[in-house]
Amino acid sequence: MASSFRLYDYLSSGNCYKVRLLLTQLGLRFERVEIDIMRGQTRTPEFLRKNPNGRVPLLELPDGRLLAESNAILFYLADDTLFMPEDRFLRAKMLEWMCFEQYSHEPNIATVRFWMHAGWADQRREQIEAKRELGYAALGVMERHLAGRAFFVGERYSIADIALYAYTHVAAEGGFSLKEYPEVRDWLARVAAQPRHIPITQG
Amino acid sequence: MASSFRLYDYLSSGNCYKVRLLLTQLGLRFERVEIDIMRGQTRTPEFLRKNPNGRVPLLELPDGRLLAESNAILFYLADDTLFMPEDRFLRAKMLEWMCFEQYSHEPNIATVRFWMHAGWADQRREQIEAKRELGYAALGVMERHLAGRAFFVGERYSIADIALYAYTHVAAEGGFSLKEYPEVRDWLARVAAQPRHIPITQG
Repeated sequence: MASSFRLYDYLSSGNCYKVRLLLTQLGLRFERVEIDIMRGQTRTPEFLRKNPNGRVPLLELPDGRLLAESNAILFYLADDTLFMPEDRFLRAKMLEWMCFEQYSHEPNIATVRFWMHAGWADQRREQIEAKRELGYAALGVMERHLAGRAFFVGERYSIADIALYAYTHVAAEGGFSLKEYPEVRDWLARVAAQPRHIPITQG
Repeated sequence: MASSFRLYDYLSSGNCYKVRLLLTQLGLRFERVEIDIMRGQTRTPEFLRKNPNGRVPLLELPDGRLLAESNAILFYLADDTLFMPEDRFLRAKMLEWMCFEQYSHEPNIATVRFWMHAGWADQRREQIEAKRELGYAALGVMERHLAGRAFFVGERYSIADIALYAYTHVAAEGGFSLKEYPEVRDWLARVAAQPRHIPITQG
């Protein structure tokens, strides 16, 4: 049994970064176990026993219980903290944006970044073009929502902002330009200015 | 202002069905507004004013507020009901399975079904093959989890079951066979036997 949280982590993954960022902002002690996706370490029998879906992040609680899926982990950690609205409707709106992130944002913006990191830009050119269009559409939805708003939900920094920040702030690594998204750029700066913020490169 | 819930709905969509099913099981009165995806009705200026991401389901509360994303809507409606565990960890596990559904299950199993309904099976053969493999992988994760369990979380029917049932029970319409997934088939029967269950064809 671990005495603090243990995070099965991959440093450049935005999904993992979400959890590192929240753990840090909550002031919780945690130990990182680096799992190299590129070397198949999420698909070993040992890791699949921990997460049958073979993905990081995976959080091991101090009592040994395991929790997967970045946004479910954020929800667990933020429960009853200032990182989640108390109001029932606002909490659902927060989840709405987190669902948007995993369905309409991450599969496009994060996936293109991953392919470019992996050196697959040429062989996947056609798929990248399709994802480029969908990724910009997601950024457009964010841009229009942020007009006149400081944060995504309830005018307060929440885990919806953490979830959306993770891959938006490194979108350029996938070839996305934020030039025409000034509201998004201003919001990124507000998120980065939050207390105890850490960069994605910090373990 | 509406006097009851108004659901912007598309009958054959599993994501919409999740919400219809829960509203019915909760005994809540609601009005359906059919939005025909195939005729572009989620992309009209009028609809985009309601949901800038251009998708159904979209729930209008009795006070006029709007909520999108099927799993966020389920969470809102199930809050403080027997359809959601009270325990913080189990609630996070429930969300874990709902995130799994939207990321690893729906984009493969539901998308292939949609393409086959639309008559695009031939022109998308290569993409369908890739999605077939990922869809069966998701069913495998469910099969192993359900061994020795009645429901996905906490041995009790919850919105995690509703979320996963929606596209699993019509997987055959996308050419997926459940022959080798006996635990999944037994679980489908248990879900269908819940009080006030309705079929996807019922508006």
